[in-house]
Amino acid sequence: MNLGKRTMEELSRRTLSTRAPIVDIHTHVYLPRYAEELRARSSAPRIYRRTDADGQLEERLLILDGEPGVGRPVGPQYWERDQKLLFMKRHDIDISFVSSANPWLDFLPPERAHTLAQELNNDLEEYCSTSPQANGFPGLRSIYGFGLLPLVSGISVSSVLDVIKQVNTLPHISGIIIGTRGVGNEPVWEAIQQANLVVFIHPHYGVDSKSFGNKTNGHVLPLALGFPFETTIAITRLILAGVLDRYPNLRLLLAHSGGALPQLSSRLASCIAHDPIVAKRLKHDARYYLGKLYFDAVAYGAEELRFVSDVIGRAEAYSFTGGEYNADVGSTRMLFGTDHPFFPPLEASQKWQSVEDNLKAIWSVRTWEDSARANVLGLNALRLFDLEC
Amino acid sequence: MNLGKRTMEELSRRTLSTRAPIVDIHTHVYLPRYAEELRARSSAPRIYRRTDADGQLEERLLILDGEPGVGRPVGPQYWERDQKLLFMKRHDIDISFVSSANPWLDFLPPERAHTLAQELNNDLEEYCSTSPQANGFPGLRSIYGFGLLPLVSGISVSSVLDVIKQVNTLPHISGIIIGTRGVGNEPVWEAIQQANLVVFIHPHYGVDSKSFGNKTNGHVLPLALGFPFETTIAITRLILAGVLDRYPNLRLLLAHSGGALPQLSSRLASCIAHDPIVAKRLKHDARYYLGKLYFDAVAYGAEELRFVSDVIGRAEAYSFTGGEYNADVGSTRMLFGTDHPFFPPLEASQKWQSVEDNLKAIWSVRTWEDSARANVLGLNALRLFDLEC
Repeated sequence: MNLGKRTMEELSRRTLSTRAPIVDIHTHVYLPRYAEELRARSSAPRIYRRTDADGQLEERLLILDGEPGVGRPVGPQYWERDQKLLFMKRHDIDISFVSSANPWLDFLPPERAHTLAQELNNDLEEYCSTSPQANGFPGLRSIYGFGLLPLVSGISVSSVLDVIKQVNTLPHISGIIIGTRGVGNEPVWEAIQQANLVVFIHPHYGVDSKSFGNKTNGHVLPLALGFPFETTIAITRLILAGVLDRYPNLRLLLAHSGGALPQLSSRLASCIAHDPIVAKRLKHDARYYLGKLYFDAVAYGAEELRFVSDVIGRAEAYSFTGGEYNADVGSTRMLFGTDHPFFPPLEASQKWQSVEDNLKAIWSVRTWEDSARANVLGLNALRLFDLEC
Repeated sequence: MNLGKRTMEELSRRTLSTRAPIVDIHTHVYLPRYAEELRARSSAPRIYRRTDADGQLEERLLILDGEPGVGRPVGPQYWERDQKLLFMKRHDIDISFVSSANPWLDFLPPERAHTLAQELNNDLEEYCSTSPQANGFPGLRSIYGFGLLPLVSGISVSSVLDVIKQVNTLPHISGIIIGTRGVGNEPVWEAIQQANLVVFIHPHYGVDSKSFGNKTNGHVLPLALGFPFETTIAITRLILAGVLDRYPNLRLLLAHSGGALPQLSSRLASCIAHDPIVAKRLKHDARYYLGKLYFDAVAYGAEELRFVSDVIGRAEAYSFTGGEYNADVGSTRMLFGTDHPFFPPLEASQKWQSVEDNLKAIWSVRTWEDSARANVLGLNALRLFDLEC
C-alpha cells in the first residue's frame, strides 16, 4: 500500500518538534500469582504443560471454554516484568499502563475472587512502584497499573466497594479493568465515579460461537469480530440503561476503539428514536454519549482511527441541549495501545507487526496535526491519569 | 445538530445540475401470497389477528422466534403496491428495487420452499412489470425486483439452480435477496456468478439474544446491533472461505452499509495475519475484498457513509499484487436505500424520519462532490442493474 512507502523512521515520534511520551494503555499481564491460579485448574481458563514437537516441555494457555485446538503458547512475556520492559524498549514505549488479561477473576467464587483481587492489586502496585523511572520524564515511573475488582456472579456490593477502596490507596493504580459481565451493578458505578477511577472495559466472551459456523478459521472470528461485538453490546447496554446519564463523570475507556459502536451509533440512534419507551429514558441522542467515552487506538488502520475521531467530534452536536461539531476533540479521547503480549510476531523479529500497525495508523491519519498525534501517542494518557510530565 | 440547520429543501436533489434519479435499493415487500403463508402459521414468523385497544381488529407480525411483546402492526404497506408507490412519491424516489422481507423462505421444508420461491418470483415479476413507468426516465419502470432462492436446510443444489434459471428468465428481476444461512453453498455461488445476478445479503437472525441481557430494550439491541453483526459475520466467513477469491465477479450488496465490517476490517486483517493457516488461504489482505463489495447507504449518518467510502477507496492499496488508494471509488459502490416499510414514522407525518436521515447523510458527506451524491442516490443502482436512462 502507498503508506508503506514511508518508513517507520520517517513516521517516528522523532519528527515531533518536542519529545512527547509514547504511552501504552492497552498492555496486559498475568501476574505470577494469577498464573499459579491458572496452573491449578483443570478446565479453561487454565495453564497446562505438555511436551512440544521437539520434545521440550512447554506451557500452554487455554483461555476460552470450548476453545479449538490446544491453546496458545504462554511464557515469561505474560508474567515477567523484564519482558514487558524489553518490549517497551523495543518499541520506544516510555510508559505502560498494565492491566490483567482476561478473564480476570470471572471464573472464581465470590470469596476467592475478593481475596485474590486484593492480593493481585497489591502485587500490581509493587510491580509498578518498583519499576524503573521513565527515561526522560522525571518524576514518572515506566509502569502504572489498572487494578481488578471481584465483579463475579454472587458477589456482594460491599465486597466490590471494599476493593474499590483498596485500589484508591494504591498510588500507582488509578484505574481498573473490567470485563462485560459486571457492568450491571449500579452502586458500583456510583462508587467508581466517586473514586474517579478510569475504567478500562475489555471483552472476553465474544458472542455465541455457533454464530461463527464451523471451526476452520482458528481464532480469527472470535477475536476479530466476537471481541468487538461484546464490547459494543456492553457499552450500548450501559447507554440504554441510563448509566452515562446518571454518572456523567465516569471515565470509561473502551478496548479496541469501541468495537463496532462508532459505526453502528447512528443506526442505534435511529432504532432508539423508533422505540419511544427506550427513547424517553435517555437524555440525549445515542451519538452524544460517544463523546463522553475514551477509546484506545487499537484498530490497526488509519481510516478506522480517523472515523472514531469523527464520531467523537460530532458527539456534542447530538446533545439534546444543543452543541456543535468539534473536529479537534476526537484526538483528545483516543489513546495508543498495543495489546501486548497478544498478537506476537510470527517469526523471531525485533518489532511486533501489531504494534507497528497501530503506530503507523496513528501517524497516517491525514487530518491529525502533530499535536493530535502526540495526544494519542501519550499525552492523553498522562492527562487521563492525572500524571504530570 | 448543526447540519440540521440546512433544510432538506436546500439539500434536495434539485440542487444537482442535472436531474439524477433517486433509486431505492433497500425496500421490502411481503407479497400477498407470502402474507397468506404467514397467516396460516401458528409460530413465528406469523401474522395473526387480535383486537386492539380501541376494539378494532388488527393484524400483527411476529417476525422472530422468542420475540418480546406482541409483535409489530402489519398492514397494507407491507403488501400493497399502491402503498409502495405512495411512499416513493412522498420521498421523491423514482425507482425502487423491491425485495422480499426477512425471513424469506427459511422456515419452510425444501419442497414447499422451492414451489413458493418460483411462485413468489413470478408474482414479483408481475408486481414490477405492471408498475408505472418511472416519471422522467423513459424506458424505465418505477419498480424492479430482487427474487428469492429456496436456500433452506436440506435443499438440493439442483433445486436452487432451477430457481436461479427461472429468475434469469424474468426481465424485471435481475438480483436476488438472501439471508445468511444459505451462504455456504459453493455451487450456488458459481451459478449466481455465471447468471450475473446481484446478491443482496440481508440479516434476520442477529446473534444469540442472551448476549443482550434482559429484555427491557424492546427491539433496539437485536435491530441496531444484532442485525449488522450477523451481516458482518456472514460476509467475513465468505471472505475467509475464499469465495471472493474463487468468484471475483460476484456482485454482493451488503445491507446496512456492511454492518460492522468496515470498522473491523483492519482488525480482521491483523487477526488473519497472525494465523498462518487462515492467511495462506487468501489471495489478499482482508481489506482488499471490501473494494469488491457493494454497500447500501442505510447507515443514518454522514460520518458512517464517509468512512465506508474510505474503506472502499483504500481497498486496492491492500491488494497483494499492488494497487493504490483511490478516494473516488467509494461513492461508486454505495447505494441509497430506505428499509421501507420498516422504521415508519411514530406519528402520522408526511415524511419518514428514517428516510430523511439517510438522505441527509448522503447530502452531508463533506468529501463527496455532487456527482458522487448522484451516484449514491441513484446512478450506481442503474449501472449495477444494467439499466440505461
